[in-house]
Amino acid sequence: MKFARVGAAGAERPVVWDTDRWYDLRPITTDIDGAFLAARGIATTRAALAEGRLPAADVEGERIGAPFSRPSAVVCVGMNYAAHAAESGSAPPDVPIIFLKTPNTVVGPDDDVPIPRNSTKTDWEVELGVVIGRRASYLDSPAESPDYIAGYTVANDVSERAFQIEQSGGQWSKGKCAVGFNPTGPWLVPAEDVDTSDLRLRSWVNGQPRQDSSTRDMIFDVDTLVWHLSQYLALEPGDLILTGTPEGVALSGRFDYLRSGDVVEVEIEGLGRQRQLFTTS
Amino acid sequence: MKFARVGAAGAERPVVWDTDRWYDLRPITTDIDGAFLAARGIATTRAALAEGRLPAADVEGERIGAPFSRPSAVVCVGMNYAAHAAESGSAPPDVPIIFLKTPNTVVGPDDDVPIPRNSTKTDWEVELGVVIGRRASYLDSPAESPDYIAGYTVANDVSERAFQIEQSGGQWSKGKCAVGFNPTGPWLVPAEDVDTSDLRLRSWVNGQPRQDSSTRDMIFDVDTLVWHLSQYLALEPGDLILTGTPEGVALSGRFDYLRSGDVVEVEIEGLGRQRQLFTTS
Repeated sequence: MKFARVGAAGAERPVVWDTDRWYDLRPITTDIDGAFLAARGIATTRAALAEGRLPAADVEGERIGAPFSRPSAVVCVGMNYAAHAAESGSAPPDVPIIFLKTPNTVVGPDDDVPIPRNSTKTDWEVELGVVIGRRASYLDSPAESPDYIAGYTVANDVSERAFQIEQSGGQWSKGKCAVGFNPTGPWLVPAEDVDTSDLRLRSWVNGQPRQDSSTRDMIFDVDTLVWHLSQYLALEPGDLILTGTPEGVALSGRFDYLRSGDVVEVEIEGLGRQRQLFTTS
Repeated sequence: MKFARVGAAGAERPVVWDTDRWYDLRPITTDIDGAFLAARGIATTRAALAEGRLPAADVEGERIGAPFSRPSAVVCVGMNYAAHAAESGSAPPDVPIIFLKTPNTVVGPDDDVPIPRNSTKTDWEVELGVVIGRRASYLDSPAESPDYIAGYTVANDVSERAFQIEQSGGQWSKGKCAVGFNPTGPWLVPAEDVDTSDLRLRSWVNGQPRQDSSTRDMIFDVDTLVWHLSQYLALEPGDLILTGTPEGVALSGRFDYLRSGDVVEVEIEGLGRQRQLFTTS
């Protein structure tokens, strides 16, 4: 089972995949959002599918949106893969480093991404996205985290390195929030169907391989991250956590930064693949 | 004229002050939010008041909420007063430094603020809040900014300095996002009624003065900030920009950090005063 939203930007409708086809989710909910997830919407959907209560959906040729509505927060974890920290010139962190993207960066997985005006260093970052299912504040231990995770998705944490590092006074958000900088999806896959201990993550630019790593190389695993974050802020249902990117980005100096006309693809094993055309602003 | 929202948290109703009394805004809008502001709701309100179309509102004894609904983003500017940069051990920045608070930090101006668990360094920061009225992306110059500003408010950018600086890997958001860390209001005052060039900002702890400065000491003024931010991200209607805090916070070493039972007050000339009891989590 996997959830998606299809249709024009801002007018997506919710669908769910089961076995061999898409089903219309609108008999259950108008949208895949925090309220749906917090009300155990995934379990409700599973029951409705089992009982044959959802009509088939025809999604052929439709735009794919982000698989859930705009979150209240996008919380990002920096330097969570040791080899990426090294290529960025940093030591592996002792504690999770967190920063935020503005929620209006979240777009569909295959939407065009405008390279910001005055950008010279637009970069890609494939990341495992964690979608929160229940308000999480002050969890007692990482063992509690699974109760608060609705599912997983693919995200490209697009970054402008000059904005992030050179023009920022050291606070990264300035290079993380441009329009379209958070392609998300194609799917939201329920947490109970995903083992995040060893998922392959890959990215390509114009078909050439860039990142190729596994979530087993994360310094802080998903459960540790959710628990840790909950000590510092309250995660809301529908919020998105980006868990960090592995090595193989342009910031390393090994690859060119993106230019208008470039095509980026990112994929996580079992969670789907994105494809973005980078354009001018 | 000034806008407010009164009632229980999550169930506030909109009101507007004119001349000598409060009026119920519900004949015009269910809430003071981005859609209301973008649809020129302030002008509509002014016309409705002039035509006597709004009923009087009785707000006596009611809780005051934040004066607008939860923003899509809270964008903060760091080190925007030279003396505060100095007390924080930093040089004045060459460009605005930006970081984000999660939007769920926004609470009413007089709500209790829980000191986070394991906090040792909870601090206050009075700040001028700018509320966006139109989507702002790639403004051509600071001279365009006034067209995108709906109004102004008071904010306390509550901060946990150990979380922000010592446990963060240098990214400040970890110390900026705890529950209740963004008391906002009491009022949203329309931009056309406010001259931000020289507003006195003050704060007190348990009645003892702490900050006492003026917006004329900002390194980057409001119009410059809105223009600058719009080069890096799209500001949405109803978004909140916190424009930085002047000297006089506990981080300076001159004052104790906050403890349960402390009362913080912050005030900006013409924009109202807040009062928070700090409690345990």
